Amino acid sequence: MQLPPDSVGLLEGLTTTRAIRRFRPDPVPDAELAAIMFAASRAPSGSNRQPFRFLVLRDGPRATDAKALLGRAFREAWATKRAADGYGGGDPNAPKARLERAMQHFVDHFEEVPVVVLACLVRYRPSNAYEGNSVYPACQNLLLAARARGLGGVMTMWHALVEAELRPLLDIPDDVAISATIPLGYPQGRHGPVRRRPLGEIVFADAWGQPAAWATEPEGTQHTQAGPPSERR
Amino acid sequence: MQLPPDSVGLLEGLTTTRAIRRFRPDPVPDAELAAIMFAASRAPSGSNRQPFRFLVLRDGPRATDAKALLGRAFREAWATKRAADGYGGGDPNAPKARLERAMQHFVDHFEEVPVVVLACLVRYRPSNAYEGNSVYPACQNLLLAARARGLGGVMTMWHALVEAELRPLLDIPDDVAISATIPLGYPQGRHGPVRRRPLGEIVFADAWGQPAAWATEPEGTQHTQAGPPSERR
Repeated sequence: MQLPPDSVGLLEGLTTTRAIRRFRPDPVPDAELAAIMFAASRAPSGSNRQPFRFLVLRDGPRATDAKALLGRAFREAWATKRAADGYGGGDPNAPKARLERAMQHFVDHFEEVPVVVLACLVRYRPSNAYEGNSVYPACQNLLLAARARGLGGVMTMWHALVEAELRPLLDIPDDVAISATIPLGYPQGRHGPVRRRPLGEIVFADAWGQPAAWATEPEGTQHTQAGPPSERR
Repeated sequence: MQLPPDSVGLLEGLTTTRAIRRFRPDPVPDAELAAIMFAASRAPSGSNRQPFRFLVLRDGPRATDAKALLGRAFREAWATKRAADGYGGGDPNAPKARLERAMQHFVDHFEEVPVVVLACLVRYRPSNAYEGNSVYPACQNLLLAARARGLGGVMTMWHALVEAELRPLLDIPDDVAISATIPLGYPQGRHGPVRRRPLGEIVFADAWGQPAAWATEPEGTQHTQAGPPSERR
């Protein structure tokens, strides 16, 4: 195979890759999935140990069972989060109301997502808070590569609720962490500029909390508050 | 400001961004740094909390002191790793011998690196092994954005040796993790295809350890073994 030619630029891709949770039913061709996984695998890792692994669930027998298990977990997790995080009410056209509907649709149709990737980390030392530096860059590469090929996805941790059942079902060894669950497919919506906090709130110069005068944003950048509604300042 | 136009494609960038440790002395213009930090800040994070922060060290008074402290840490860490990981000896043209020389040059000249970014995570709950999913995607975006603008860098953890001195020097609060130290600058060498394990070793289908027949690599892909020399199988 050959890597397909790019139609999306690098900075463009970095700044316009949205979390995608609504998928068209179209299957993902093998060649596209290969290109995406190849790009994911080019990510850096500590001492280039490359401890990341991608367990890809499509329509095989165990994949089908695993998707059903994950669907149950995602519906439970969202029900809890929806209640706890202050969704509901207010303007139905507000971004958070749209997110709420997208989340509900996402979990209700989880089993129909064409591809679900379990991003895993083979541990070579005891678990610690920094080990993610050898797996989450590869997850980000995966999401960006999906964007490059017209697909989309989202990084989630909701497998945690069924991890005890998922591991024996998929033969995942004890020394392997399930670092993320990444559903992938062709989006129903579009990618586009993402909204974040103003850059001045997250970039400091010379010392913590010191503003970086040079950290300007592109004209027209739109902002959002951080986190779920219940945590808004 | 406006984001500059892309001259590197998205898949191209994902598959050809190398760790850069040799830098030209050229300073990094403010506008380039702004574009890089902006792209970094577009990364996803759990519940879009955006808990990542970038403390950028250039030539301010505290930055200079912090770079000196980090330089000491990097030289100590590399001396330990060099001895422990079986570098030295063998063919001076082998990739590992070249890496060894690049590492020595890197740590010997650390204070001259134009920009050093401390990527930080503001914790909102107790530290855990998965919290990196809200900071390392942003670190990878940062490295890819540097690539997009003709710069390069590398993600390191060697600040750990001097973290107790670094925190008060830079006013970094107790609830903030220093998740990575990322030196940045214009590379002396070039970016290009990176070497990794064969894709078949890291992608599984339907269950752990099951080969994914579709996971083919682009023609001409070159491989490397994983990790430092002492761990080679």
